[in-house]
Amino acid sequence: MDTMVLRNLTYGMFVLGTKDGSRPTGCTVNSVIQVTSEPLLIMACVNHQNFTNQCIKQSQGFSVSILSEETPAAAIGNFGFRSGRDTDKFASIPYGLTERGYPVLKLNTCGWLECTLESFTDLKTHSLFIGRVTGAESAVGSPMTYAYYHRVVKGKAPVNAPIFEKPLERLWTCPICGYQYDGSSGPFEDLPNSWKCPICGVEKGMFKQAG
Amino acid sequence: MDTMVLRNLTYGMFVLGTKDGSRPTGCTVNSVIQVTSEPLLIMACVNHQNFTNQCIKQSQGFSVSILSEETPAAAIGNFGFRSGRDTDKFASIPYGLTERGYPVLKLNTCGWLECTLESFTDLKTHSLFIGRVTGAESAVGSPMTYAYYHRVVKGKAPVNAPIFEKPLERLWTCPICGYQYDGSSGPFEDLPNSWKCPICGVEKGMFKQAG
Repeated sequence: MDTMVLRNLTYGMFVLGTKDGSRPTGCTVNSVIQVTSEPLLIMACVNHQNFTNQCIKQSQGFSVSILSEETPAAAIGNFGFRSGRDTDKFASIPYGLTERGYPVLKLNTCGWLECTLESFTDLKTHSLFIGRVTGAESAVGSPMTYAYYHRVVKGKAPVNAPIFEKPLERLWTCPICGYQYDGSSGPFEDLPNSWKCPICGVEKGMFKQAG
Repeated sequence: MDTMVLRNLTYGMFVLGTKDGSRPTGCTVNSVIQVTSEPLLIMACVNHQNFTNQCIKQSQGFSVSILSEETPAAAIGNFGFRSGRDTDKFASIPYGLTERGYPVLKLNTCGWLECTLESFTDLKTHSLFIGRVTGAESAVGSPMTYAYYHRVVKGKAPVNAPIFEKPLERLWTCPICGYQYDGSSGPFEDLPNSWKCPICGVEKGMFKQAG
C-alpha cells in the first residue's frame, strides 16, 4: 500500500480561531471544507492535542481565516508550532473579533467565516467539527494551498519554480518547524546563543546544518 | 454575510468509484480529505441525490481516483453530469479494479485509494463518508485543484493566465455543464439536430449563444 498518494489530496491553509474564556486563541489547520449549502455548514478537522480543540468545544464556536499566498512562514509558524495553552498567539498579530467574539486575521487572508458549533465527532486522534456559518467576509487575495505552503513558503522556492532546487549545504535548519536560517543577519555561528528560531522559538543550539 | 468567501476554500478533484452489485459506478466530487493517520481514515462528502451515495452504503466501500491537471473536461463531465442509475459511466473509460472490486481510473490520475466504509453521517443534503484506507497507489502527475478546474479546464484559459479572458461572443454554451462548442466540427448551425453535448449529453437545441 503506497500511502505517499495521500500527499496528492488537496487542502487549503487556515487559521482556526476560537476563545479560551474571553482570550483569543487558535491554530493552523489544512482541513476545512464546506459540507452543505442548506443549511450552510462547514467542517474542520482538529487534533485532540491542540488547545484549540477543547476551546471550540467549550465556547461552542470557531472562526476560519483563509490564508492567502502572501502569508509569511513566520505568521503560519506562530499559529502552528506553539500551544495556545501558554502562549498568546494573537499578541503580535493584527486581528478583529467577529460578532460572537472569535478572532479573525486582518492581514494575509482572503476572507473569514464565523461558525457556531453544530456538532462534532471525536475520532481517535482528531475531532471533526461541523460549524453553522453565522458570519462571512471576503478579502482580496489568492488562497494558499497546502501544496503551495510546502513548495513555496516552507521551501522558499520561487513561486513558479517547476522543480524545487536549492543548495542545502551550509543551511542551518530548525529541527522542529523546518525553518532555514538564510544568513540575513550574518553567519549563523555569530548569532548570540540567546537567538531563537523566529518561527517556532526553538533554541539556536538545536539547529542542525544540512548537507 | 458575504458567502462568496466560501469560494476561497480549497478542494481537489476526484472520481469517487463504487459499485452497484458488481457494476462499477461513481461520480466526481471535490471534497476528499484525510482525517486521521492512525487509523488511516479519509472522508468524502457526497450528495444524497447521487446514485454513488446509496451504492457506497450498499457495497460498504469506495475508491478515490485523484484527478491530475491533464484531465480533459469531457472526462470530468462524464462522471459529473449523468447519473449512474441509467448510464454506465465507465463504459468508455480505461479503469482497473481494486482488490475489493472498486473501479479506479487508469488515465489522468495521480493515484488512487481504496476504502472500506467505516461510518457515515447523513446531513440534510449530503453524507459524510469516513473510509478506512485498505489500498493505495501513486501515479505521476500534478493534482487538479477545484480552482484549476474552474479556471483552466472549464474556462479553457491558458494554464498560467493571470486573468481569465476570452471572447464569449458567438460561442454556443451548454446550459447544463457549461461546455462551449469550439467550432472544431464546423459552424454550430451546421451540426445535425441529433448532435449532443459531448460532455453531458444534452440536446443541441438546448444550447445557448453567449454574448
